[in-house]
Amino acid sequence: MSFDSLQDLLIHQLQDIYSAEQMLVKALPKLQEKASSEDLATAISEHLEETQNHVARLDQVFELLGERSGGVKCKAMEGLIAEAEEILDEDGNDAVIDAGIIAAAQRVEHYEISAYGSAKAFAALLKLSGVVKLLNETQEEETAADKKLSLIATTEVNARAAGTHPSMAAKTV
Amino acid sequence: MSFDSLQDLLIHQLQDIYSAEQMLVKALPKLQEKASSEDLATAISEHLEETQNHVARLDQVFELLGERSGGVKCKAMEGLIAEAEEILDEDGNDAVIDAGIIAAAQRVEHYEISAYGSAKAFAALLKLSGVVKLLNETQEEETAADKKLSLIATTEVNARAAGTHPSMAAKTV
Repeated sequence: MSFDSLQDLLIHQLQDIYSAEQMLVKALPKLQEKASSEDLATAISEHLEETQNHVARLDQVFELLGERSGGVKCKAMEGLIAEAEEILDEDGNDAVIDAGIIAAAQRVEHYEISAYGSAKAFAALLKLSGVVKLLNETQEEETAADKKLSLIATTEVNARAAGTHPSMAAKTV
Repeated sequence: MSFDSLQDLLIHQLQDIYSAEQMLVKALPKLQEKASSEDLATAISEHLEETQNHVARLDQVFELLGERSGGVKCKAMEGLIAEAEEILDEDGNDAVIDAGIIAAAQRVEHYEISAYGSAKAFAALLKLSGVVKLLNETQEEETAADKKLSLIATTEVNARAAGTHPSMAAKTV
């Protein structure tokens, strides 16, 4: 393809994100299954539902633009998921694995926050207000998901991974 | 490997980031070469110098920890760079290509901000204050680089890509 206009770039970026969200729908259940923390498993499960909705929202975006959603494979998300799956293949302390899952998931969220941010900026310049609104809704959910993961890490998982959490101390007595 | 302790996870994360920074040192010159905006090319060149320094800072971190830096290949950065290089292979409008380079570079920065954030949190829990300080210095530079890219996009490149920038209008008269 050729990037002759900002619209060309926007479509390519949206197709890339579409591919990324679809890969994530397949990957999140594996992360959820490996998570030991109930809060973490619940957060991943809730984000899976949101991610399915992100795909549906992108379908609406492509309909608004009269463009097809397919044709691009998001190599970055492929790499991010491959990195997350490395952790799933490992043995070790449950809380440490959970901390690793959170770190991988937050990288994914940051990728998406950045990707939606760029696409939103391009859509705004092209005065596609309906598209901006839809992309913004998803970006806000990605930001909230990232914050929720940080909260689970800082209030529960990380401290237990460091072996200093009271419930962990109680278990080892 | 086995993630038996938070220290194991921290080392693995640092080795992953080390691999990512090394890949980036090789990739940034290609992005710089393709950039048409002087401000963008300068920003990438400055960030290349910073990135070389990030590798050196990680060398210090590994020395502090008495651990080796190698052995992990960052699959996520491999994907992020592959995605960025897709843009380099395309033809089109210079400003649109620049907007695409910025979008790709910001995804990379967001990945690194997240990666350093997790590693910093783990190092803080392990009371490795010297390591935290070094990781924090780099994370602040990644954040600043991301903001600079946003500034170049919003004040110059994006508007020109949308064909509404005065200097573009002047060129096409």
